[in-house]
Amino acid sequence: MPVRAERIAADIEAIGRMTHSPGNGADRPTFSSAWRQARDHFLAEAERAGCHCRIDAAGNVHARPRGVAWSRRVWLSGSHLDSVPHGGDFDGVVGVVAALEVLRAAHEDGRADLPLEAIVFAEEEGTTFGLGMLGSRGWAGTLDAAGLAAVRNRDGRNYWEAGVDHGAVPDRLVAERLQAASYAGFIEVHIEQGPAMWKHDRRVALVTAIAGRRQYAVTLRGTANHAGSTGMNDRHDALAGAAEVIAAVECLPDLLGDHAVATVGRITVSPNAVNVIPASADLTVDLRAPDDHALDHGDERLRAFVASAALRRGLGHEVAQTESLPAVRLDEGLADRVRSAAERLGLSPLPEAVSGALHDAAILAPLVPTVMLFVASRDGISHNPAEFSRIDDVAEATQLLADVVRNVPDAF
Amino acid sequence: MPVRAERIAADIEAIGRMTHSPGNGADRPTFSSAWRQARDHFLAEAERAGCHCRIDAAGNVHARPRGVAWSRRVWLSGSHLDSVPHGGDFDGVVGVVAALEVLRAAHEDGRADLPLEAIVFAEEEGTTFGLGMLGSRGWAGTLDAAGLAAVRNRDGRNYWEAGVDHGAVPDRLVAERLQAASYAGFIEVHIEQGPAMWKHDRRVALVTAIAGRRQYAVTLRGTANHAGSTGMNDRHDALAGAAEVIAAVECLPDLLGDHAVATVGRITVSPNAVNVIPASADLTVDLRAPDDHALDHGDERLRAFVASAALRRGLGHEVAQTESLPAVRLDEGLADRVRSAAERLGLSPLPEAVSGALHDAAILAPLVPTVMLFVASRDGISHNPAEFSRIDDVAEATQLLADVVRNVPDAF
Repeated sequence: MPVRAERIAADIEAIGRMTHSPGNGADRPTFSSAWRQARDHFLAEAERAGCHCRIDAAGNVHARPRGVAWSRRVWLSGSHLDSVPHGGDFDGVVGVVAALEVLRAAHEDGRADLPLEAIVFAEEEGTTFGLGMLGSRGWAGTLDAAGLAAVRNRDGRNYWEAGVDHGAVPDRLVAERLQAASYAGFIEVHIEQGPAMWKHDRRVALVTAIAGRRQYAVTLRGTANHAGSTGMNDRHDALAGAAEVIAAVECLPDLLGDHAVATVGRITVSPNAVNVIPASADLTVDLRAPDDHALDHGDERLRAFVASAALRRGLGHEVAQTESLPAVRLDEGLADRVRSAAERLGLSPLPEAVSGALHDAAILAPLVPTVMLFVASRDGISHNPAEFSRIDDVAEATQLLADVVRNVPDAF
Repeated sequence: MPVRAERIAADIEAIGRMTHSPGNGADRPTFSSAWRQARDHFLAEAERAGCHCRIDAAGNVHARPRGVAWSRRVWLSGSHLDSVPHGGDFDGVVGVVAALEVLRAAHEDGRADLPLEAIVFAEEEGTTFGLGMLGSRGWAGTLDAAGLAAVRNRDGRNYWEAGVDHGAVPDRLVAERLQAASYAGFIEVHIEQGPAMWKHDRRVALVTAIAGRRQYAVTLRGTANHAGSTGMNDRHDALAGAAEVIAAVECLPDLLGDHAVATVGRITVSPNAVNVIPASADLTVDLRAPDDHALDHGDERLRAFVASAALRRGLGHEVAQTESLPAVRLDEGLADRVRSAAERLGLSPLPEAVSGALHDAAILAPLVPTVMLFVASRDGISHNPAEFSRIDDVAEATQLLADVVRNVPDAF
């Protein structure tokens, strides 16, 4: 059941052309026309590879060989096709294509009974509705229909309104929820999105943990005033306060130990005029660390330095936690199966890694035995049109996935 | 020729109601419908007060008593009616209403020959087209028709396209340019927009200088990357670099001496997503000081610290000066006339001030003898819906203006 790198390359290129910003990276917000094109490409390829497909109530696509009934216990593998604005062609796509390619290789070999279900999760990135992994959360039951009705995209449409033409149906969400017992395990192939593997010439790595993430909306409120006639000591400048917070956020990981990172990715200032002292600044903070104690400590420090900057400057302030996802240890038993597959394929010892990024795997891990396989990202560039991974590395991860799925004497 | 505070109050209230953001401050971008309403209010009141009116090619409105021919040499007084977004009801309006009230008082007294022209300058604030004092610059000839064709509002329309329905005509700009010999002097009444006068209980002050202003567009360019999987040492975060620049701009005035101020009022970040390291940040810098040497020094320091932050962080950078207006000394002879008027009215000694804000007066000062009268701003709040000045103080400034204009034995 050899996987074919040229088919993987052709899929990645084809999906890369499905974007709202041609020539300027992937732009496939969930439920947009470009996203739908990419999902339709997956469906067409899966059907050509002898699969039957279904879309669950949260909008995720599932595909199995026709010889494998929906009731049968199987392996699960896949990822997402949505992208950040001006993102890359590999993020998410690689994991969808890897699962698809294993199904295609099985079809070529006449294995209509391969116990593998490929999945395309709807909305992973979080840039469309302000909260990530909505498809996997909806399916896993960690977010209910009301929760998905509360998030809105830039057009002001909530998840259900935006998804109605793409199979998302609130009424069936509970009935079609993930049945954990139906899956032997979930293996998500994904690009690393960081520079460590590329730097050390590691092509594929086994991910044993996913860092936890806390996200915050920080608001500072000062006084709009004339930039020319208000002395420096008479100001309550929300943006100057925000700059202090951004600098402190950048120093925060040093206090929290290895693998911690913190980012202010978004800022909005009002009135945002060249000659008016900013009256308000809204910024986001994204804080990640591989253990929950570090996250707790980061939370405390963040609140303390926002309060202190605000107090010193006479600014109003708010720090609202908008998301909290715990650090996740992945499944040791499934990790051992991957290590054995690596040995069979001559890839042993397989490098191991911690994921700084969150993935749908983090949502499924508490319910289904889960691991991830990382593929090296050139120079660690991701969420960027320059994102690149070697097709041979993707093919190697795909071969590992195929080997795990094929060798299942004791999994069912 | 007594001026009437209740008429002044009624005008300010009426114009305050002409806004695109009712209940949330003045929003009268130049050439918008709210701005046009306010200008029409001025025209109707001037005509009721026995004036003839004209609109010059730059879109400024002029009004004189019908007994005073357009060819006659007169005093000039006025200000602007456009506002920043969510600005106050007094900025600009006070100076227009003061000139209007002097014309009304003269009309009541049957003085159809009062040598005063009231003026409403089009576009002073700079928030509509990204550059301020366009009406006065166009009329004074410091900006030509091509220059006004180069600026665009948020709808993408340039000054002429936006102004065509409001009397702005590029073809006549040169022919209708300000003839300096036609004016004995220009007196602009304006709110202080800073806290100094209110703090020291000064109601009206004579302005003897206007600080110079330099404005800059600063761009920092880094690399968009994943906020979770990119270690802190592998980042080129444009917003973290911008925060450093904002902090340095805030410290800049300390190096430049008394009355210097510096502001970052606007920032735009791309892609501006919670989980993506910012790839680029565009910010504006507004730097003011009462002498040009201080401005030169500030320019050098700004360029140096932007370059140093960019170098240290591996960011691309640009610092483009978008505006340079020299510091302006106002006219000593005209200032003496105002001091004499204050003496006649029992307001001597009149407090004196330097304007940190720029005004149309700074554009006219090199061509026509110019002074300003400041009215105290409560707590220095301006460019803000909470902006407030006492009507009695506005009336006192108006009375001073009337007295100067009335006592003109040697001015013509």
